[in-house]
Amino acid sequence: MKIAIDAMGGDNAPDAIVAGTVLAARENPAVTLVLVGDENAIKRCLGQDAPRNIEVVHTTEVIEAEDEPVRAVRRKKDASMVVAARMVKEGQADGVVSAGNTGALMAAGLLVVGRIRDIDRPALASVWPTMGGKAMLVLDVGANMDAEANHLYQYALMANVYAKVVLGMPEPRIGLLNVGSEPGKGDKLRKEAYGLLENGPFRFAGNIEAREALNDRCDVLVADGFTGNNMLKLIEGFGLGLFDQLKRIFLANTLSKLAAAVLKPGLTAFKKRFDYTEYGGAPLLGIDGAVIKAHGSSNDRAFQMAITQAIRFLDGNVLEQIRTDLTKTTETV
Amino acid sequence: MKIAIDAMGGDNAPDAIVAGTVLAARENPAVTLVLVGDENAIKRCLGQDAPRNIEVVHTTEVIEAEDEPVRAVRRKKDASMVVAARMVKEGQADGVVSAGNTGALMAAGLLVVGRIRDIDRPALASVWPTMGGKAMLVLDVGANMDAEANHLYQYALMANVYAKVVLGMPEPRIGLLNVGSEPGKGDKLRKEAYGLLENGPFRFAGNIEAREALNDRCDVLVADGFTGNNMLKLIEGFGLGLFDQLKRIFLANTLSKLAAAVLKPGLTAFKKRFDYTEYGGAPLLGIDGAVIKAHGSSNDRAFQMAITQAIRFLDGNVLEQIRTDLTKTTETV
Repeated sequence: MKIAIDAMGGDNAPDAIVAGTVLAARENPAVTLVLVGDENAIKRCLGQDAPRNIEVVHTTEVIEAEDEPVRAVRRKKDASMVVAARMVKEGQADGVVSAGNTGALMAAGLLVVGRIRDIDRPALASVWPTMGGKAMLVLDVGANMDAEANHLYQYALMANVYAKVVLGMPEPRIGLLNVGSEPGKGDKLRKEAYGLLENGPFRFAGNIEAREALNDRCDVLVADGFTGNNMLKLIEGFGLGLFDQLKRIFLANTLSKLAAAVLKPGLTAFKKRFDYTEYGGAPLLGIDGAVIKAHGSSNDRAFQMAITQAIRFLDGNVLEQIRTDLTKTTETV
Repeated sequence: MKIAIDAMGGDNAPDAIVAGTVLAARENPAVTLVLVGDENAIKRCLGQDAPRNIEVVHTTEVIEAEDEPVRAVRRKKDASMVVAARMVKEGQADGVVSAGNTGALMAAGLLVVGRIRDIDRPALASVWPTMGGKAMLVLDVGANMDAEANHLYQYALMANVYAKVVLGMPEPRIGLLNVGSEPGKGDKLRKEAYGLLENGPFRFAGNIEAREALNDRCDVLVADGFTGNNMLKLIEGFGLGLFDQLKRIFLANTLSKLAAAVLKPGLTAFKKRFDYTEYGGAPLLGIDGAVIKAHGSSNDRAFQMAITQAIRFLDGNVLEQIRTDLTKTTETV
């Protein structure tokens, strides 16, 4: 097994990326990790005693966070991310892990690696912490803006396999994000998708309202990319805003500062539970390879975690299982 | 001016509804408020010294919270909400205020009162508190599930008038909820709507990302009903969940309880700011009358506030201004 690593993507690249790759290489000696990026910078980070299962491929360009995704992927042919994706396309690697520009990775997955046959649209899946402290896989959080019912069905099918194989959920409950819990609720898209999801080769848990979405009602939450992206960003913004407001209350005066100090351990643990960087990378499902997006602010541990997900993805034959489930259900859908 | 009040709708009906109506009647002696519902129950709540500008219309049916909206409105012809809506349709009242079943009020607005001419779809607008403590009008939060670009444009036009007249915002900044802030972002619907909004008779603030939505970037946030409804419910659920988790941290042990007691005033004030019931009612814009949905759990003060909104709506000729703006822009759109 060989995984291409975009060494130049992310806020802490290449240092944290290389460090995380070294951790993962030591933990998985049978896996070859190929660091793709500026050779000098990578070698400086690697130092003398790099694990022998790390290789380096030199590239000269980098896709920046502010680059327009599709244009960057098309024009920067020697960008670390694009070269890593091309390695998967050409069979030189089985997967790619990047902490770089999310849109660009989605574009590289779609345009360079390509889709799984019979999957119409890839979906970006993100792991959210629930109020009960569990993990929930939410997709699509922004790969496909104009989803159709059949896309939502395919998201469910792919996420079911990923949740089982990579997240270790035995029989994931698949929920459909909707404005009401009863069947028949929602817009045209949701009404049509509901009919498809009922007949899928997975455990359909029905409609889930956003109010209940974080209360462990399902293990996989299916949404269109527009809504999923907005929900993800709303949680981020609302969470940050609330913690900011709490901080002000805590820092109001000497007494409140003392009180806050008492509560600090509990609050820190709590905030950490809602730190989305703790939950590893986001798979781009539907691409014909393991494509994992690590959080942009990944440190070495977070990036190692994203590589571990790619390894589990490949070890568990996620792609093969998706293909099998797809053929299984062609007749019913 | 005459406003029909659904005396039987809401968790605290008829008591809180009647009490709120009495407060509003005393404050606005020139406005006639018509309590529609069970006459005996209303009169018991009114007691002896009811203001003279309160009238009572007796009805025998009630739409319950769990009733299927459209069916309930069609079948329960003598329901307090339906009779109140019919009074507007027949010119016996200028508006209706209800704390009852939201879906039923939207159905009653659409099916009984009817739309403003040239408005394709009504929208439910909800006032959200921002992190900076201001108010933001968000629409549509669930009246129309399958929005088209022209609907979003009309939402913006109507909300602009409402924000100016009822919320007292001099020149509301109208934002479009989208997955990126640059023009050209989003799904087909958003791309098309952006082009229309740019040319509207209001101050267009461009795309607003959900992450920034609560940070006072705009005064009116335009969304399709599916996304808006999900966002509203996500905030409710996430907020409740967070406060629940904080409570656990505070109640962990004696010391944390003491610390929490110190912080309590600040936290209570903070929580109150995010109590959506404090922000009055939600107008159903696009209906040919003032239709205000008060929060289901309204107490007398909250319900009085919703009536005040209806009065401002009518005093400020919101409907007339919407009609004027609609004709103003028929050429450009």
